[in-house]
Order: sequence, then structure tokens, then C-alpha cells
Amino acid sequence: MNKSFPTARRMGDIAPFHVMDLLARARALEEAGHDIVHMEVGEPDFPTPEPVLQAGMEALRAGHTRYTPATGLPALREAIAGFYERHHGVSVDPARIVITPGASGALQLIMGVLLNPGDRVLLPDPGYPCNRHFVRQFEGEGLGVPVGPETDYQLVARHLEEAWDARTVAAMAASPSNPTGTVVEAASLEALSAAARERGGVLVADEIYQGLVYDGHAPTALSVTDEAFVINSFSKYFGMTGWRLGWIVAPEEYVRALDKLAGNIFLSASTPAQHAALAAFSPETGEILEERRDAFRERRDFLLPALRELGFRLPGAPRGAFYLYADCSAFTDDSFAFAGDLLDRAGVAITPGIDFGAHRPDAHVRFAYTTRLDRLAEGVERLDRFLRT
Amino acid sequence: MNKSFPTARRMGDIAPFHVMDLLARARALEEAGHDIVHMEVGEPDFPTPEPVLQAGMEALRAGHTRYTPATGLPALREAIAGFYERHHGVSVDPARIVITPGASGALQLIMGVLLNPGDRVLLPDPGYPCNRHFVRQFEGEGLGVPVGPETDYQLVARHLEEAWDARTVAAMAASPSNPTGTVVEAASLEALSAAARERGGVLVADEIYQGLVYDGHAPTALSVTDEAFVINSFSKYFGMTGWRLGWIVAPEEYVRALDKLAGNIFLSASTPAQHAALAAFSPETGEILEERRDAFRERRDFLLPALRELGFRLPGAPRGAFYLYADCSAFTDDSFAFAGDLLDRAGVAITPGIDFGAHRPDAHVRFAYTTRLDRLAEGVERLDRFLRT
Repeated sequence: MNKSFPTARRMGDIAPFHVMDLLARARALEEAGHDIVHMEVGEPDFPTPEPVLQAGMEALRAGHTRYTPATGLPALREAIAGFYERHHGVSVDPARIVITPGASGALQLIMGVLLNPGDRVLLPDPGYPCNRHFVRQFEGEGLGVPVGPETDYQLVARHLEEAWDARTVAAMAASPSNPTGTVVEAASLEALSAAARERGGVLVADEIYQGLVYDGHAPTALSVTDEAFVINSFSKYFGMTGWRLGWIVAPEEYVRALDKLAGNIFLSASTPAQHAALAAFSPETGEILEERRDAFRERRDFLLPALRELGFRLPGAPRGAFYLYADCSAFTDDSFAFAGDLLDRAGVAITPGIDFGAHRPDAHVRFAYTTRLDRLAEGVERLDRFLRT
Repeated sequence: MNKSFPTARRMGDIAPFHVMDLLARARALEEAGHDIVHMEVGEPDFPTPEPVLQAGMEALRAGHTRYTPATGLPALREAIAGFYERHHGVSVDPARIVITPGASGALQLIMGVLLNPGDRVLLPDPGYPCNRHFVRQFEGEGLGVPVGPETDYQLVARHLEEAWDARTVAAMAASPSNPTGTVVEAASLEALSAAARERGGVLVADEIYQGLVYDGHAPTALSVTDEAFVINSFSKYFGMTGWRLGWIVAPEEYVRALDKLAGNIFLSASTPAQHAALAAFSPETGEILEERRDAFRERRDFLLPALRELGFRLPGAPRGAFYLYADCSAFTDDSFAFAGDLLDRAGVAITPGIDFGAHRPDAHVRFAYTTRLDRLAEGVERLDRFLRT
């Protein structure tokens, strides 16, 4: 008998999250009685808002537990269109909205309808690590484009002009960005989309942190073009991470293909989650979410100057999400070892740059302010002591 | 500006469900006041069992709405291992169990860790149509192997010996099968797995209808080998379709890769669904599920002889799932047109063979007994009148 098993080569290119090793160490330390300040978690510490929970329970009581259409509940697609109208003054045909199992499902569908083997997608580096893997999943190649403070850690049209080649079919932007929290302005979104479209490609705009902006607001790509893919999610701003629910607003040319692919690979997104999400746009939920946004702002307004005071460099303008991407080169040339030491010796968990790309990861770490202000203060104190010794 | 959009070639190979057109016509007829007997629906008509609904509501009350580990809640993986121990007398290490967003998620992960571009997977034809598309999604090729009454519409080891080539890496079996309801015996599962392993490949056993068997029981591939992938789901037997929750039991060699891929493309399966599913194995739920199984058996025991009486040929032994795959060649050589006529003229919705493969689809239709006995009786009466005119 042949003892070997068939194995896909793609798995050699799909990296695990390095922070997972740190998390396992953090858990072991906690089990041994140590107190850990968690500044590594990419998930809001707030529970799902009460009106959404209530709508979820009501849906279960009413027996809403069977499949929905592949593109989602019509009422939810209309509610999302209403949200764009009210919050962004943009009119979106609900027929262009596809409900997905999280933004992860959205990324799969989009890469699935776009990519042929060998096709390239331009991605900002640093950026959300899974984007590259969604591209790789469909035998495409994510090309990381180094971005830094000079463009607020975002792709600009010039990057597309320089990096686009015959194999390139799309470019991604995330606004606000994970890990940097920076925002892309409307004019830049328009230029990015135009640069992609001029080359026969498309812009994919990840707007999952859009509701979490603390200075001004983050425009949607929908306000400048109907020819980009826009991804959003109920996870971060709406506090529904574990429900796994997101959406795509697609150029109408792709709607049929997305419907077909979703029907085949997902059947549909979670039905209880979709019914619960109908309450996500209510005024009561809105009030709760705005209070939470204020709390995140307060945390950022504490943590950003505190980190700068300690000697971290944060040259960009982190206006949203709940992350600060800090240059730690004043202290180390190995951010992975730095994060490990910080955890072991000071009980503070952060994410090393290596999880976000290949552009100077050793000089960066990500701080998440997904924990209470007093815990952030404790974390800063511990950092201060750690950096002095 | 270049007005064309990039498009993946795979979308040309991924077929929509043809029954969807019939469904749209059925809905239009219903809106015009006509009564339609639905025998096309691949989803139980029973709601999620009350104890599972209650556990779901309790989970929401308790705020279980954040991400779980990528492989799922440890308690649920252990509960599933317990289920194999109690119901099949098979001991499975919970570490080999990966919780997925439905069996759809399971199929994605398995094809994702197995397939390189051009790799082949042998599939029974007729079979579940999406299987071919999960293979195509990862740039593989699903090779339909014609199966008929002589092997109870199932692959047997001989098929693998004949069809396996250098590009083949896996074969799939579904027991009970959609659309035929036939079961693979343990000896055949063992021979299928051995035939695949001898050639350096693996067997992928789809057991999502395993709980729904009406004569004897359907053995799990786990009872004969640790080297096959086994897929199961909370959708069909456990009545949780819309929750989107399933699982894989994997050869231990693949667990790390599945964990890594799941963490990247799904993050995790639905958290409320996972907590609800913890109640799926309780004795109270078990009683409800067994009553439902009795109801399905009663329906099959009515519908199978009634269809034979009408002149449909059903030579296999449909022992499970909730489908009858009927040879309609006594009435038509175009099952698609036949299903359309039956809907328009008699108000009975069924699924034409074309949705299940390329092997004599024109001679077959699928009847689903996912509706009450009195409605099935009404459907049979209408069929009788339809076939006489």
C-alpha cells in the first residue's frame, strides 16, 4: 500500500497565523496564574447588541431555520441598500447586494468569479494576511505592494500604474485598514478604481471597518463608482463576529456569477444570522453602536499618544478600525522576538508584523484596542517598565 | 476605458441548478392562485428540534457570539466523537474532527487540501451536482462515473480500478446518496478506500443523510478505515439546514492543513449554531429525530410503490435520504420537458435528472418526500391523471 497522501501545493503557500503560537503561550501563562493584557485580539470586546440578539431569538422562536436564497433574504438586501442611502447618500440597487458567510465568504466569491490560474491581485503590504490566501486558493497570486507612511499605508493609483502587468486583474484596498487603521479618501478610491478599470481590471474595496472611524468618516467606494466590488460585514462595527455574516455590493455584471457560485459552494448564509441582522440597522441598535464607537475613540485617543510617548513611531493617521501599527525599530530589529519577550516578561500580548506581510514586518507590531481602557493603561505601564529594563 | 471585466473561466463550467427555473415557475403559478405539490425540495419540512432551538436561544442569552477556534468548539468535537461511539461503536479521536460551515464548507476544505490543478476526482453519476463544482473550484476535474441499478447507483472498487489514472487523487461516495437514496455497505466502503489508498489517493465519504435510513442502517466509513475523509452535517437528520453546520472526520495526516485552511478562509463556523448543536445529541432531541425518521419512512413506504404502480421504474433499493430517483422513460425521453409539463399542467414540482449528472439524465426525475403524506397522496393522484391524458 502506498502510504503517502495526495496534498495540494497551495497548502505550502498558505501561512498559519504566527500570533497563534503567541496566543497558545499566553493561554499557558494564564493557566499558570499570570495576568495577560490582551492587545492582540482582532475582535471587538463588546457582545452583539441586545436588539440584534433579541431579533435572533425571535427568529428561532418563529422557526426561521431553513435555507434562504443563495443571495440572501430580500429584506436584508433592501435593508443594506437603505443603510447606504441613509449613511452615505448613495443609491444602490438591492439586486447588486449578495449576502455572504462573513467577509471571508465575500472574498471567496469575488476571487472565485475573478481569477484564473496565474492571475495577479495587487495587495497593500502590510495588509490583512488572508487576502493573499483567498487569491492563492483560486490559483492566483497576491502581489504585495509595499506601502508606508508616505501614502498613509494605502495603495494609490501610482502603485497600480507601476505594478500592473498583463497578468494583473484586480487591486485591493481596505479602508479603514487592518493593521494600520488608515482611511482611503474618495478621490483616491476613484483614482484606484479608474486605474484598475483602464487596465481591464477591477478594484476590490474592503470596507468591513467602515463604521469604526473616529475622525471624519470613511467614504464607500460606491460613492465614486459602480464598477468596484465592495465588501462589508456585520462582524466588526455591528458586533456580530461569531454569526459569520457579511455582504458584497458587486458591479451588476457579476451578480449572476456570484449567485451561481454562492448557490454551489455555500447554498446560503446562516438564516438565523440574517434574521438577526435585520435589527442591526434599527435606531436602538444604532445608538448602542455609536456609544461603542465613542469608547473605541477614547481608547485610541489614549493609546496612540501613549505609544508615541514610549518611543514607538506611528507616522500615519490611524483614524479607524481598532488597530495601531507601530514601528518598534527603536527597540528591536526582530518584532517577532520582541512580541514574545513582551508576553513572557511583561504579560502583554500583541501581534508581530510578520502576520501582515513582507514589507518591514520585523520593524512593526500591531496593537489592538479591543480591551477596556483600564487594561490598556495597565498594558502601557507594563510596556514602559519592559522598555526600561 | 476598457469596458470588459475579468472573468474566471471556471464560471463557465459551474452550472446553475436547472430546478431553479422550475421553482421560479412554481412560485409564479402559486402567486397566480394555483396549488403546487412540492416534491422537489432537498430540505426536510420539519423545523429545527425544540431542544436545539432552546440551546440556540440560551447561547444568545449567554452572549456566545464571538469567534470559536477554526476547528470548532472543543465540546462539540467531543460530542460528535461520543455520537460515533454510541451509534456506530467507533472510537474517533476528537482531534480528527473539524467543524465546518455546513457540509459545503467541509467539501471546500477537503478539495482545498487535496487538489492541484488538473487533478481528478471520481464521482458517481448521478450524484450531488455541487461535488463536481467543489472540484472545479480548486482547478480540479470531477470525472463522473456512470452508475446504475447493477451497483445500486453506487461506485464500487471495480469502477476505481477502471477509471483511476495518474491524475486521479480521490473518489467520492455518498451513503445514503442524493439523488438515489441507496446505501454503501461496509465491505464496499472498505474496498473503495483500499482501492483509492493502493493508488496513493483517498476516499471521500459523504454521510450527510446517514441518520435517515429506513431499512437497517448506513455504516460509517470510519468503521472500516482511518484513512478516508468522512463528511457529515447537522442539516438533514438533525433538521438544521439554515444554520449551516457540518463536520469532517479527517485522516490525522490532514488535520493541520484543514485547520490552517479553515482559519484562513472561514475563520470559524457559526458560533450560535455550534452552541445550539450541542443539544443535537441529547436524548430528548434523539426522540424527536427518531419520530421524524419514522415519518420519512412512512412517506417512502407510500411513495415508492405508488410510483412503481404508475409506471416509473425504480430498480434500486432506496433505503435512505428522502429521495426517489425514478426512471421515467416509459413516459418521455426528455425528463426536463416532462418535469416542466407536470408542473404547468398538473401542479406537481419535481427535479429533472439533468441536475444530477450526464448519465441518462433525460430518462430520470427525482422525487423528494419532504412534504406531508396527504400532499404526497395528492401529488400521486395528480401524476396519475397527468399520465393518463
